[in-house]
Amino acid sequence: MQRRGRFITLEGGEGVGKSTNLDGVTRWLTERGIEVIRTREPGGTPRAEAIRDLLLAPDIDEPLDDDAELLLIFAARAQHLARKIRPALERGVWVVCDRFTDATFAYQGGGRGIEPARIAELERFVQRGLEPDLTLLLDMPVEAAQRRLQGRLAASGDDRDRFERERADFFEAVREAYLSRAAAAPQRVAIVDADAPLQTVQARLAACLEERVTPWL
Amino acid sequence: MQRRGRFITLEGGEGVGKSTNLDGVTRWLTERGIEVIRTREPGGTPRAEAIRDLLLAPDIDEPLDDDAELLLIFAARAQHLARKIRPALERGVWVVCDRFTDATFAYQGGGRGIEPARIAELERFVQRGLEPDLTLLLDMPVEAAQRRLQGRLAASGDDRDRFERERADFFEAVREAYLSRAAAAPQRVAIVDADAPLQTVQARLAACLEERVTPWL
Repeated sequence: MQRRGRFITLEGGEGVGKSTNLDGVTRWLTERGIEVIRTREPGGTPRAEAIRDLLLAPDIDEPLDDDAELLLIFAARAQHLARKIRPALERGVWVVCDRFTDATFAYQGGGRGIEPARIAELERFVQRGLEPDLTLLLDMPVEAAQRRLQGRLAASGDDRDRFERERADFFEAVREAYLSRAAAAPQRVAIVDADAPLQTVQARLAACLEERVTPWL
Repeated sequence: MQRRGRFITLEGGEGVGKSTNLDGVTRWLTERGIEVIRTREPGGTPRAEAIRDLLLAPDIDEPLDDDAELLLIFAARAQHLARKIRPALERGVWVVCDRFTDATFAYQGGGRGIEPARIAELERFVQRGLEPDLTLLLDMPVEAAQRRLQGRLAASGDDRDRFERERADFFEAVREAYLSRAAAAPQRVAIVDADAPLQTVQARLAACLEERVTPWL
């Protein structure tokens, strides 16, 4: 019987270096002969990416209601799980995902102030018990992450989406919510200090994968 | 203190004549000096209409997962309630809506086979107790409704959306679910026999409004 694939998520606020480090995680797995797909949330399939576009579009016509935002995120997640994540895991392929439900607790819970119990209700509804086998949380102080983000914006022009336009107290709340999720599930979530040069962060991630993933191989 | 507006929904399967009769209901209320807005689901606000577009787009890229469809519908509903329906009712304006949550029980419950308990969970989540004061269910045999729809398609070319492309047994299940919703809430839902010439149906609707709405005035 085919062994089920593992589901690894990478989490963290804006500017912590998720995209770059996602490459590193994927490479680490591939080098060990693991078949892996890389995906992201919200999105990951054509229909889920269309939902992502609705979520990220700046509030020009009308503000997006908090409940509507939350339900859109879980709609995209249901599609992503049904069409991409679950089929891959069942084929024995590993899935590395840029953000998942911890981000919902962080952004919509911490950031927007939606009660965690309401988010947990939709989590149960959509995931039916499925959760990541390992979550790597890239953590750094908000101020340092914002400085990185400013550098990127200065280089590329201001194309910030609805979330990136939020203010510092929003990101503080996001970080706090992430850390409290990690504290509540230490067996699943590994916190990686991302406030360091890229090479150092990559070495920390590799050490973490060595410790957490190698025993599964 | 401003009296709260009333919330009236019009329901029924494809081809039963909802759009035309919605005009009649709106006119009946306006003639009695009631300030009324007319709206529809899924949709009713710019962001909710954008969600509607995702829901109705034919499955070209990939099929839409049933849970994703259900969550998109409730996301659009949350937006519609927050931005249009609740504010109108609170201002004392009446709202007449082309389809609401009964349609979700009929199409996603009856048609797609999603358990009613799962739909009821999202109904509670999003509506927090709000439900229509009156629902007018236009009912007719599926075969007769399909004949009407065929006439329309022959006249305008086949521009059917994802739901209109379903088969007869889907619409039978939709009709059964509508009728069972009506049977479970007779104080809220009035069944109007729509298998008759337009003038007759309009007279039946007017009689129904006379009986149900006049006591509120």
